[in-house]
Amino acid sequence: MDTLKRLEQVIAERRNASPDESYVARLNAEGIEKIAQKLGEEAIEAVIASLSGSREEVVTESADLLFHLMVLLQARRIKLDEVLAELDRRDGVSGLEEKASRSE
Amino acid sequence: MDTLKRLEQVIAERRNASPDESYVARLNAEGIEKIAQKLGEEAIEAVIASLSGSREEVVTESADLLFHLMVLLQARRIKLDEVLAELDRRDGVSGLEEKASRSE
Amino acid sequence: MDTLKRLEQVIAERRNASPDESYVARLNAEGIEKIAQKLGEEAIEAVIASLSGSREEVVTESADLLFHLMVLLQARRIKLDEVLAELDRRDGVSGLEEKASRSE
Amino acid sequence: MDTLKRLEQVIAERRNASPDESYVARLNAEGIEKIAQKLGEEAIEAVIASLSGSREEVVTESADLLFHLMVLLQARRIKLDEVLAELDRRDGVSGLEEKASRSE
Repeated sequence: MDTLKRLEQVIAERRNASPDESYVARLNAEGIEKIAQKLGEEAIEAVIASLSGSREEVVTESADLLFHLMVLLQARRIKLDEVLAELDRRDGVSGLEEKASRSE
Repeated sequence: MDTLKRLEQVIAERRNASPDESYVARLNAEGIEKIAQKLGEEAIEAVIASLSGSREEVVTESADLLFHLMVLLQARRIKLDEVLAELDRRDGVSGLEEKASRSE
Repeated sequence: MDTLKRLEQVIAERRNASPDESYVARLNAEGIEKIAQKLGEEAIEAVIASLSGSREEVVTESADLLFHLMVLLQARRIKLDEVLAELDRRDGVSGLEEKASRSE
Repeated sequence: MDTLKRLEQVIAERRNASPDESYVARLNAEGIEKIAQKLGEEAIEAVIASLSGSREEVVTESADLLFHLMVLLQARRIKLDEVLAELDRRDGVSGLEEKASRSE
């Protein structure tokens, strides 16, 4: 479960690499619009895989989505821990079901 | 960092609750199309927040996206650990930069 | 085929209506982020309908998508004719297949 | 305003071309999942352009979105006229504002 923490660190290191050598550096050089676009595209692929893809395709697309979410968070200088704390808070304050009242 | 593990467990418990009482049960009762739709919608909101929202909005939308990704994985009977293993594998085998060759 | 022209005019008239009375006025009052969000959501629904929905659902979701595209264009002060001219231009200059070279 | 009609016809002719020569044929050879994916991606790009792009970028992305919507409709054997009739019907029966009650 340290995977996401480690991924966060690797992404931080790669941000300053040369765009020629690093995909993360390349995305960051292109700007937040490009990173957001990739996040959106990976979500579309996850949606499609979930409906008509194999189990393996859903795993692959979910990994891509998580990876690009981590890149996007870092581009906005947000730590994964802040997002996890938000998930904890919801559950702690009022249970998971708070979401129901919020989103509907 | 146990947040996602704990969330996975809570979602598993809620799946069998009454749709009247649980948002997770309600989503599952509506089917994978509805869950996929919600994932897609949360991704759109994360994209928009990343471009023109506050830091706090990006945190909120990212939490929503993660939450619905967990619901979708569970609906397809996939463990978060499988997705994390996929991220580890990429990093282990060839470094994060494998992604670059794959996606471009 | 005058449908879209007429729709464009109706949307223009509704923009200035009261948000209490008009969906178009309400979307515009909420701003371009809300309009873009709705466009994205309708696209997700069209994606899902195309994969697992009936013919009728694809028609409905495509109509929703077109409607919100028209609202978005108007919010950015763009005429449908400009978008159609762009489609004509592509076809005229180099055939539809220009798209292939552009997007791949 | 005959642009979309003409585009519909061109797309129909290209569907049977060789995938080596035609982008439309290539998309159709890859299947409805690929066509839906492209529609979703173009919608994401339209969302992003509408928020932070130039007028010209919104025109370009809207043209891409319309083009891929036409390809998707044809892949599901739906005529543009059916979608336009749905838009007419909404307006005719209860005015554009029917949408408000439907979607909220």
